Amino acid sequence: MEYSNYFSEHTKSMKSSLIRELVASTKSIPDLISFAGGFPSPKTFPKEALAEIYAQVIREEGHDVLQYGASEGDNLLKEQLLLWEGYERLTKDDMLITVGATNAIYYYARTMLNEGDVVLVEAPTFLGSLVALNALGAEVHGIPMDEEGIDIDSLRSSLKKLRSEGKKVKFLLSIPDFQNPSGITMSEQRRKDLIRFAIDNELPIFEDNPYSRLRYTGEHIPTLYRTAYEYFRNTSIVTEAVSFSKILGPGMRFAFVKGDKSIIEKMCSWQQKINVTPDCVTERVVGHFLKQGLMQPHLDRICEHYKPYLQTMLDALEREMPSNVMWTRPEGGIFLWLWLPEGFNCDELFEKAKEHKVAFIPGSKFFPISEEQYNCMRLNYSFSSLEQINDGIARLAKLIKSL
Amino acid sequence: MEYSNYFSEHTKSMKSSLIRELVASTKSIPDLISFAGGFPSPKTFPKEALAEIYAQVIREEGHDVLQYGASEGDNLLKEQLLLWEGYERLTKDDMLITVGATNAIYYYARTMLNEGDVVLVEAPTFLGSLVALNALGAEVHGIPMDEEGIDIDSLRSSLKKLRSEGKKVKFLLSIPDFQNPSGITMSEQRRKDLIRFAIDNELPIFEDNPYSRLRYTGEHIPTLYRTAYEYFRNTSIVTEAVSFSKILGPGMRFAFVKGDKSIIEKMCSWQQKINVTPDCVTERVVGHFLKQGLMQPHLDRICEHYKPYLQTMLDALEREMPSNVMWTRPEGGIFLWLWLPEGFNCDELFEKAKEHKVAFIPGSKFFPISEEQYNCMRLNYSFSSLEQINDGIARLAKLIKSL
Repeated sequence: MEYSNYFSEHTKSMKSSLIRELVASTKSIPDLISFAGGFPSPKTFPKEALAEIYAQVIREEGHDVLQYGASEGDNLLKEQLLLWEGYERLTKDDMLITVGATNAIYYYARTMLNEGDVVLVEAPTFLGSLVALNALGAEVHGIPMDEEGIDIDSLRSSLKKLRSEGKKVKFLLSIPDFQNPSGITMSEQRRKDLIRFAIDNELPIFEDNPYSRLRYTGEHIPTLYRTAYEYFRNTSIVTEAVSFSKILGPGMRFAFVKGDKSIIEKMCSWQQKINVTPDCVTERVVGHFLKQGLMQPHLDRICEHYKPYLQTMLDALEREMPSNVMWTRPEGGIFLWLWLPEGFNCDELFEKAKEHKVAFIPGSKFFPISEEQYNCMRLNYSFSSLEQINDGIARLAKLIKSL
Repeated sequence: MEYSNYFSEHTKSMKSSLIRELVASTKSIPDLISFAGGFPSPKTFPKEALAEIYAQVIREEGHDVLQYGASEGDNLLKEQLLLWEGYERLTKDDMLITVGATNAIYYYARTMLNEGDVVLVEAPTFLGSLVALNALGAEVHGIPMDEEGIDIDSLRSSLKKLRSEGKKVKFLLSIPDFQNPSGITMSEQRRKDLIRFAIDNELPIFEDNPYSRLRYTGEHIPTLYRTAYEYFRNTSIVTEAVSFSKILGPGMRFAFVKGDKSIIEKMCSWQQKINVTPDCVTERVVGHFLKQGLMQPHLDRICEHYKPYLQTMLDALEREMPSNVMWTRPEGGIFLWLWLPEGFNCDELFEKAKEHKVAFIPGSKFFPISEEQYNCMRLNYSFSSLEQINDGIARLAKLIKSL
């Protein structure tokens, strides 16, 4: 049986994950220091607390959590999430539990997109979303960012142009906090301007929020969803997905989404057809983790844990890099972004860096198709040791200086 | 923000779950006996063993299972599944772990279907697959069954007709063991005939297998996948999804798929985009449940548990039903199928049955659109007590006799 003739057009044109291939190509290199992945540190996983809760949930509530659950998500978990986030005007019907934030993006995109519809994204943005949107037949356009986040003037002119061409622009995907891959955090004023613009122009926003609770220094800024909720009393324009992958551990596949009831209802219909429900055991375990008040002390601990890793990378860059290299200075999250002078190609640099036993993700991978920029890279600081960060940045700087 | 204009065509045409609505309409009726659902008995959940394994896995392997896992599925689990099923010629690359069997069907359909492509199904068949296939834009045609399973002559003439019309028939969906909803099990000879036909006509088969290990009497028959593997040395024509929902508990979202490497690879690509991975904790827990040798004794226990429930329903039907009512006599699984004389309409009967405090799923819901038959119903015997089965069948028979 030769299946290639049986595959759908989308399947035929699907590319395998570039990051997976890049990372795989470095696996057999001894002593390689990798800033390529996006893994949280296993030291941050609250193993003891989770082990106890898992056992207790199965013993005492196994008849319930091992049974089919609701596609809308576990009731106890949703109640706890509402209490935790403190949204008094919301109810459980404004929320959906999903198998993860990528899953939430998929449901949202599946709810909105016909073939050829347009999605706007920050450029650069999360590669996982780009490939999912491409596989759904979306046309993806990038909007540039400055140090305060997405550029509203560019957004305005792109939206106007696309709509004048008859394109259906269905939504904007934004990661306002410690963005993957750039590390940029949108300023409070820019958030207000963006929400105002989105409401005025009926441009739905999907807010991907894996990192907002990983702030190590500086002042917390309200999410886009909270900005719309508090300043505009609007619970409709933004749909926010909160991932727990960098908070509890990505092996527990779980995220939650808040948004307009009509969107949540349709996303739930897709969940019925695609996954039926998220893992009900995992849902209830997270619910009890919140109910026992373990989340805030845990978040305090992991922010304390990550703080020196970010600082060490910033210090090492300052110390090692030549003056024509620039980088972002995030106050949290797990990534920062490096610009080399124009003309440098980090896809080529990646191959040379492997010889120098250091790895990163070339920046070009994070731009929509045909909008690639090549003189940039993403660096991760959550997974290496402090010593590896110092050594790896030194290796990278030495290589860049030698070019 | 009014979202209805932003929804995709598929989302706009999506219907909410009929079974959910039917079941919801019976929830407030006191003392109602329901044969409508498809829930396993919570008495079959191996809570103690699972509680211990969950705690141990988190404590000892938490650094690993709470981290991002492979989209292909957990290695330990895949090794254990290969040993458990005893397929010596297969490797881990022939398998994919998914979030559940519905999820596996979705990935498979997403891999194969363009808008308007045809899927053939047994008529009647699992409603969850029908709605997922419809939401993907498939054209679904039913093939009748007799007591030995799918009718090969009908399959041949339908396939010929559809192909002569230029339709792309992408696959046949079959549930050969204790089929949902009919309870029919395909005979061994029919399985061989079907595989032969499928190979000769290049018709891929997706085998949905939630029930084959729930046999309470009679002789085990090899699955379609195993029939192809053993009699035809073919590991390509059948893709089999094995659900653990009726074996361990549907709250643990997990299933596994075996099939041609090229299909598995593409399904894995969709998994990367839709869910990233299944729940890694759940995967490893199931792996250890198998590794500790707990599965076979557990299966023996649940088959012993369910056996009297099936027998009680068969006896009650024999005792209570008028002679013009017919039903299937499964030897396992959790459903059987009832035929009333032609002219009866079980959609209407459902409303009257609620007044008599008994519920079922009208058979029409299990046929492809515009192929509905109305004088039939599905009855579940895994969730009610023995007393409820006797009383409920008596209520239903009394109602039918009164019409």
